Amino acid sequence: MSDRLFIFDTTLRDGEQVPGCQLNTVEKIQVAKALEQLGVDVIEAGFPVSSPGDFNSVIEISKAVTWPTVCALTRAVKKDIDVAVEALQYAKHKRIHTGIGTSDYHIKYKFNSTRDEIIERGVEAVKYAKKFVEDVEFYCEDAGRTDNEYLARVVEAVIKAGATVVNIPDTTGYCLPQEYFEKIKYLKENVSNIDKAIISTHCHNDLGMATANTLSGVMAGARQVEVTVNGIGERAGNTSLEEIAMILKCHKGLNIDTNINTTKIYPISRMVSSLMNMPVQPNKAIVGRNAFAHSSGIHQDGVLKNVQTYEIIDPKDVGIDDSSIVLTARSGRAALKYRLNTNGVDVDEEKLDSIYQKFLQLADQKKEVTDADILMLAGADTAETHAIKLDFLQVTSGKGVQNVASIGLDISGEKFEAAASGNGPVDAAIKALKKIITKQMTLKEFTIQAISKGSDDVGKVHMQVEYNGSVYYGFGANTDIVTASVEAYIDCINKFKKK
Amino acid sequence: MSDRLFIFDTTLRDGEQVPGCQLNTVEKIQVAKALEQLGVDVIEAGFPVSSPGDFNSVIEISKAVTWPTVCALTRAVKKDIDVAVEALQYAKHKRIHTGIGTSDYHIKYKFNSTRDEIIERGVEAVKYAKKFVEDVEFYCEDAGRTDNEYLARVVEAVIKAGATVVNIPDTTGYCLPQEYFEKIKYLKENVSNIDKAIISTHCHNDLGMATANTLSGVMAGARQVEVTVNGIGERAGNTSLEEIAMILKCHKGLNIDTNINTTKIYPISRMVSSLMNMPVQPNKAIVGRNAFAHSSGIHQDGVLKNVQTYEIIDPKDVGIDDSSIVLTARSGRAALKYRLNTNGVDVDEEKLDSIYQKFLQLADQKKEVTDADILMLAGADTAETHAIKLDFLQVTSGKGVQNVASIGLDISGEKFEAAASGNGPVDAAIKALKKIITKQMTLKEFTIQAISKGSDDVGKVHMQVEYNGSVYYGFGANTDIVTASVEAYIDCINKFKKK
Repeated sequence: MSDRLFIFDTTLRDGEQVPGCQLNTVEKIQVAKALEQLGVDVIEAGFPVSSPGDFNSVIEISKAVTWPTVCALTRAVKKDIDVAVEALQYAKHKRIHTGIGTSDYHIKYKFNSTRDEIIERGVEAVKYAKKFVEDVEFYCEDAGRTDNEYLARVVEAVIKAGATVVNIPDTTGYCLPQEYFEKIKYLKENVSNIDKAIISTHCHNDLGMATANTLSGVMAGARQVEVTVNGIGERAGNTSLEEIAMILKCHKGLNIDTNINTTKIYPISRMVSSLMNMPVQPNKAIVGRNAFAHSSGIHQDGVLKNVQTYEIIDPKDVGIDDSSIVLTARSGRAALKYRLNTNGVDVDEEKLDSIYQKFLQLADQKKEVTDADILMLAGADTAETHAIKLDFLQVTSGKGVQNVASIGLDISGEKFEAAASGNGPVDAAIKALKKIITKQMTLKEFTIQAISKGSDDVGKVHMQVEYNGSVYYGFGANTDIVTASVEAYIDCINKFKKK
Repeated sequence: MSDRLFIFDTTLRDGEQVPGCQLNTVEKIQVAKALEQLGVDVIEAGFPVSSPGDFNSVIEISKAVTWPTVCALTRAVKKDIDVAVEALQYAKHKRIHTGIGTSDYHIKYKFNSTRDEIIERGVEAVKYAKKFVEDVEFYCEDAGRTDNEYLARVVEAVIKAGATVVNIPDTTGYCLPQEYFEKIKYLKENVSNIDKAIISTHCHNDLGMATANTLSGVMAGARQVEVTVNGIGERAGNTSLEEIAMILKCHKGLNIDTNINTTKIYPISRMVSSLMNMPVQPNKAIVGRNAFAHSSGIHQDGVLKNVQTYEIIDPKDVGIDDSSIVLTARSGRAALKYRLNTNGVDVDEEKLDSIYQKFLQLADQKKEVTDADILMLAGADTAETHAIKLDFLQVTSGKGVQNVASIGLDISGEKFEAAASGNGPVDAAIKALKKIITKQMTLKEFTIQAISKGSDDVGKVHMQVEYNGSVYYGFGANTDIVTASVEAYIDCINKFKKK
């Protein structure tokens, strides 16, 4: 019989308070509904007293979701609690999350108070909140730097006052996993009424160990974890929901279950990244673009022989269609052969060797070798492959002018031209392109990366275009980000398979 | 007396094999020299047999650096070792890193071999490498999924054959910290000759626990860690060099030292991100853009009273000038007052309250409230602030056309126009702008973020411009990425302080 771990998502509170991540109420409702479908148990919807926008969001999220508990943050202050109660009025299941700093740093510098007075204020707040709601969670802010003996006193007192959940945050992200484990274990062993409440973890990632600390807490007896999608949050962020969910899924031996439907992880990761404009780095665990991409020769060879050689998670489990074999200078013969085969080209060992030598030379110059490249190397280049080339592109854009593009394509030697206006230069250029290529295709995703030290550096564009039920990936690189975008789109189209 | 931990950096090998991250030899030398200055002990420079480019890079890196050991990767194959020996000929301190898969997955599916035969091949490889170099490291690939008893046999055999370092990689990133701790502890306790070699960790981040696993390994007795800058690497990447370095710096009680000069961390992080075009997500620990940004009211209030309330790392320790207080809807009165003060505006409590109410309304609409905004709210808006406005911008760019921009600026009510051509549309627009504003300013960094589902979505641009010895941050958002870039540049200029 496995234990149930409650997932408390704070993407819309701790995540949303990050500079540049603020969402409007409509966007918050969209995320909240996706969190409900993902299967989180508690949605922390905001800090109602902090701003009118937050207050409204808690009201609207309360109306929008049905089964998750909606939680509102407060300080250990009556006014905060009053406002939170009002904001939660429409919630089907409601929780107030109140608390106060318990470390000496907080008691001394922030509150200019004493340990006993802090306990008193905490107890008061819980008792006051209990007048309005049954479910009251108490946070001991900076518990990570609070000595365990005093922390146990605080926890015991607030549970006695009625707290149903006690949150032990590592607010500064300072704890080591072993240290955090000992802290939770100490509470389990030394707080007499600890079984009357659930212990919750809330770990920050300042030293890169939020996930490990959270897991340590769970192993020591915590049964709620506070997490965010993509690990967003103040500074280096919070614990990643997706990492905790997949650790528990991969390590069945831990005997701990959640209610998370992991196949919804990737879609919500994209939604949050896009709405908050918070990029997920390619090497982010579980949800990064490269998380399931194998590029080295040794690895590719292994994956092709048996996917379990290098892969512990089936990408489908997190809602991604497929893991990918990317050809680079590090790829081996096995990967090259696999890609030739999936492109319908059969080669014997001798032919493979000769193509492989040419491939290595090309790969040393090009960062990623495409299907079209290897078909060319294999002498199997057909008119169908790379049939479309960008002949010319002229785009006028700016502020106070109409965005307009004129494009020239070379399709298997024949020339085509078209022009269009649009909302921005890329939009105009792609609309012009679509006048020539009238296939039913949809731009699914569009990522520009440009990190450079000058205004004339190369920008890189990744695109995903859906056509005929399949998604195709394209790439373009150019000092002109608009040209790079068009090249990426054409790269997608050139990969369309005949059906 | 604290123990010395050796830092083995594999940014240029395991990091560089990531799709799209390939560097040319000149770039690799640049990174290698920066790693030397950072103070890493070992630089893994490549996998020489895998491609001619890798071979040359190992040669050139060997020539370029002086005191770090240069290491070359091989399989447990004589030809690989021969090529590695040749590539390392100019290294002042050289190491061969050979090895083989030891988990049953690898033995069965990849090598179609037996446990005894694998040991034999490993021993042979070490003995062969020892003919050429004194320092031989052996990796037990997929050690994370290799049972400890067999792993101990492999380790004992290769140390007997002469291995100076034994690497225990968690190749699939599957291990839990406790599990990895037990594995290293088992080796320390059960391999009779273990003290003749250094145990090395090499942890992947597929479940988000690479750093914690590495630390567990160190606590169990490993004294070398294999890491990369920004944690880049295959799939979800490797252990982050910067996280391990800062954990050991923050937790002096662990009594483990490295040779890392942490003030070089941020510069090399930017260099690697830029050269490899691998964005670092804003919420990345230690080196993310937000890693030291405080935005919530509670936190800001605490930081202003005593920086230790919320900050465990002094940003200067990792080479960042300052932690920043960002004003958002979550900011409190203390932060607003602080920002008004740093802008030279003194307010009493009553005035502060009235500005704060206006501030909250604005912050609910704007994601980030700028200095100019709060000066306006405080009625202290001067002609100097936000003096420059973009009047119009017309840019023509594309393929087969000259990139040309015409710009109109409104500077304190007066109109200016200029035109310029450039290498790409952003370059042209900024050159035109610089014809009007002829200050000595340098674009230090330029990041475009556009993650969207359509070609007409808003693109966001962050810029850093250096002027008069200070760096200013600017932001622009527009459906036209070129206009957004110009707006970001103007945002920077509008922040320039008179000196």
